[in-house]
Amino acid sequence: MAISEKRTITKQAIDFPAWYQDVVREAELAESSEVRGCGIVRPYGLKIWELIKAELSRRLEDDGVENVYFPIFVPLENLEAEKDHVEGFAPELAVVTHAGGEELTNKLAIRPTSEAAMYKTYAKWIQSYKDLPLRLNQWANVVRWEKRPRAFLRWSEFLWQEGHTAFATEDEARAEVIKMLDIYKDIYDFMAIPTFTGRKSENEKFAGAVMTTTVEVMAKDGKAIQGATSHYLGTNFAEVFGVNYLGADGNSHFAHQNSWGLSWRSVGALVMVHGDDNGLRLPPNIAPIQIIIVPIYKDEVSRQQVLDFCGTIKNKFGSNYRIKIDERDGQTPGFKFNYWEVRGVPVRLEVGLKEVAENKVTLFRRDNGVKEVMAIEDLSKALPVIMSDIHQSLYQQAVDFSAKHINRIESWDEIKDQAGWFEASWSEDPETEKQLKEKYGIVSRVLLREKENEAPKNKKCFISGQEAKHDWLFAKCY
Amino acid sequence: MAISEKRTITKQAIDFPAWYQDVVREAELAESSEVRGCGIVRPYGLKIWELIKAELSRRLEDDGVENVYFPIFVPLENLEAEKDHVEGFAPELAVVTHAGGEELTNKLAIRPTSEAAMYKTYAKWIQSYKDLPLRLNQWANVVRWEKRPRAFLRWSEFLWQEGHTAFATEDEARAEVIKMLDIYKDIYDFMAIPTFTGRKSENEKFAGAVMTTTVEVMAKDGKAIQGATSHYLGTNFAEVFGVNYLGADGNSHFAHQNSWGLSWRSVGALVMVHGDDNGLRLPPNIAPIQIIIVPIYKDEVSRQQVLDFCGTIKNKFGSNYRIKIDERDGQTPGFKFNYWEVRGVPVRLEVGLKEVAENKVTLFRRDNGVKEVMAIEDLSKALPVIMSDIHQSLYQQAVDFSAKHINRIESWDEIKDQAGWFEASWSEDPETEKQLKEKYGIVSRVLLREKENEAPKNKKCFISGQEAKHDWLFAKCY
Repeated sequence: MAISEKRTITKQAIDFPAWYQDVVREAELAESSEVRGCGIVRPYGLKIWELIKAELSRRLEDDGVENVYFPIFVPLENLEAEKDHVEGFAPELAVVTHAGGEELTNKLAIRPTSEAAMYKTYAKWIQSYKDLPLRLNQWANVVRWEKRPRAFLRWSEFLWQEGHTAFATEDEARAEVIKMLDIYKDIYDFMAIPTFTGRKSENEKFAGAVMTTTVEVMAKDGKAIQGATSHYLGTNFAEVFGVNYLGADGNSHFAHQNSWGLSWRSVGALVMVHGDDNGLRLPPNIAPIQIIIVPIYKDEVSRQQVLDFCGTIKNKFGSNYRIKIDERDGQTPGFKFNYWEVRGVPVRLEVGLKEVAENKVTLFRRDNGVKEVMAIEDLSKALPVIMSDIHQSLYQQAVDFSAKHINRIESWDEIKDQAGWFEASWSEDPETEKQLKEKYGIVSRVLLREKENEAPKNKKCFISGQEAKHDWLFAKCY
Repeated sequence: MAISEKRTITKQAIDFPAWYQDVVREAELAESSEVRGCGIVRPYGLKIWELIKAELSRRLEDDGVENVYFPIFVPLENLEAEKDHVEGFAPELAVVTHAGGEELTNKLAIRPTSEAAMYKTYAKWIQSYKDLPLRLNQWANVVRWEKRPRAFLRWSEFLWQEGHTAFATEDEARAEVIKMLDIYKDIYDFMAIPTFTGRKSENEKFAGAVMTTTVEVMAKDGKAIQGATSHYLGTNFAEVFGVNYLGADGNSHFAHQNSWGLSWRSVGALVMVHGDDNGLRLPPNIAPIQIIIVPIYKDEVSRQQVLDFCGTIKNKFGSNYRIKIDERDGQTPGFKFNYWEVRGVPVRLEVGLKEVAENKVTLFRRDNGVKEVMAIEDLSKALPVIMSDIHQSLYQQAVDFSAKHINRIESWDEIKDQAGWFEASWSEDPETEKQLKEKYGIVSRVLLREKENEAPKNKKCFISGQEAKHDWLFAKCY
């Protein structure tokens, strides 16, 4: 895009959703497609997702999970087999009615998630307790038709992974819920994003699950983003699809199942947690480019000298960092600084004739805007420290922000003054949550794990005045 | 699967397609799904695809290609814009007519390939010659409704990568065709599979392309498998979707485009090229397990000794090889030998009390069935040599097989005696190819690159007797 066409980024304080859209566009993460509700993820945005995916893949493989691929099509009758499941997903289905030039006798849904696509086959694979546990994962696209699409966070088609397990016992399956929740928490840590982990309410749990746990993230406008979920499905699907096994006791038992998933929503969360008025800010772990070198020169002679020096730096650090020289002619250094700041590159090295002469670079940190001049010989030692410090600083900023934006409230009347999240003692009555949603567009986000076994601070529910069960976190959400 | 249920593998010589189906099932590569024409790829089969994918990804990234993700849905009107393209793909389309509980005004095809999904956006991204070349790749699922499905080779849904480029000039785009063809050839080399590379006939080229090149592979029944294709699209799509650029000359020009793709058909090719009557044989590069250790013991005391010894070996070589110990109780060594032979694991190490006492292993090679006893201290040096030798031996067997199964023929009458491929001098008249297809189910497979600038051996076409242009390869195909 030529300079003249450059559009500015709306300030976060003016209009956060507009700011988000601007950053997604200007950083060339993604854009809308011709198909309403579906997005095009551009190379820079997709690379971030691939780096997240690589880390999660590694974790799953280390944990013994194997990958599988099931068809994108699910017979409608399978989806309809589990009552809660179909109620939850029916409104969002895309349906194939014609294929190969003919009308299909059995219409096919495009998977919105794969429980109904996989578990009849699990029933075939699982015969005896010796076939358990079965722990499989699928990297795939899924489709949930969205009325109000938003880049990464709510597109009608999205990429994700979905894990699907079968265990002999409830205890094992419940342990799996927490194990996966912790892995998801680690993946967000890897992105320098603090999370709030715990259980979902009855209204907010996955359609068909006994229990849903969640990794919740706070965006910079004080809304919540559901970052990943890990479900205990009980024997709900096993009973419908016949996933049972012959136990060591000689009897037949239903398997206890889980599903757990993380999608490229995580890229949207990343933008909303770390971004600022100048654009993206990326932690080094998932930055497609960790170091950008910008050469500064006036004429052909200095150009070659400067570029040679840049090349030496790139060669020196290229095996340890994702590093790039911005060699474009016809763009000013100022344009390039801005270009890479918008894209959130953690470290910029500026190299001019002065730097060449003194064997130095000027190092700029995107996270805090600090510049310092550094001798080349100090760079090897300094870079790991700086990268780790950028990660830590982004993480701490997000922690501080969250802490400031969670208030404790005791009554319904206080809700109207809340800009971010709030904690309140709640009866867990689904009816009260519906009232809250209708009146304020707020729902419960999570019962934190550490609050699960704690008495609520207030004995009375902040909505109904009835007996409160736990202290929950509430918020508006994406 | 319990031993009692074990089904045997049909002999290749008796019924090759049945043999193929048996191996795919018994090696647990894949199985049919409830959705006709779509398959389920199991962990062992998917891991092979992931290893192929990792190597191709690395090659593409090294070559500066970036990944992108476009929606799975393509507006029908886009597909209909390029006349040849829609004619080629219309019979295979799956169409979404309903989504989100409503009938769609504009029906959506599921991508059979993404030219029509991407190039309107390319038109937006490309303004000036400075935006060129554009070289993007997508790893995705596509759907082409199959009347006669076959595991990996012809499923209605398959996974692949599709590269899509735009260049300023025809020369550059034609050079890209060959560059990608060579990369595909290398990927098949990586799988120890020899290939026949060159140009496709007018009838057999990609719908919408000016020219298609192909990587052809010979299966062990003498049929051909199209392993990957690399197309020069000319300005056909560019003219339809408006992919033009302002040249340095100040004028507007259409971009010259390519598309190129490789799918998990490559896994099917692998089975059909290397497999034997005992099942799969995998070259080490893409073997999910490169070394299987089978412990042999009679009682609890020897069991522990043997397992400890196996553990030591695994620890010693685990960082250099994908290695696994088959610790299953209740299965005989003989069962385990067969189990891993069916799955094509290149090297088996047998460890019994004798081996423990003498600090040795018995090493079995799947490619040639040879066993040898080897001292543990020699294993570090021997393994790289053995792995490389297995690769080379599988490759050479396939080369020898191909050489034996290509005959030269001069006339139509000789066709009926051909079991494998044949070479013949051909007029390249599409009508003669139609006759050949109708009568014998045979089509041209490839005009080898080295034959492109050679005069045909026979001046007369083997079908029509008219002037022959080149010597082509012909075969039945999957």
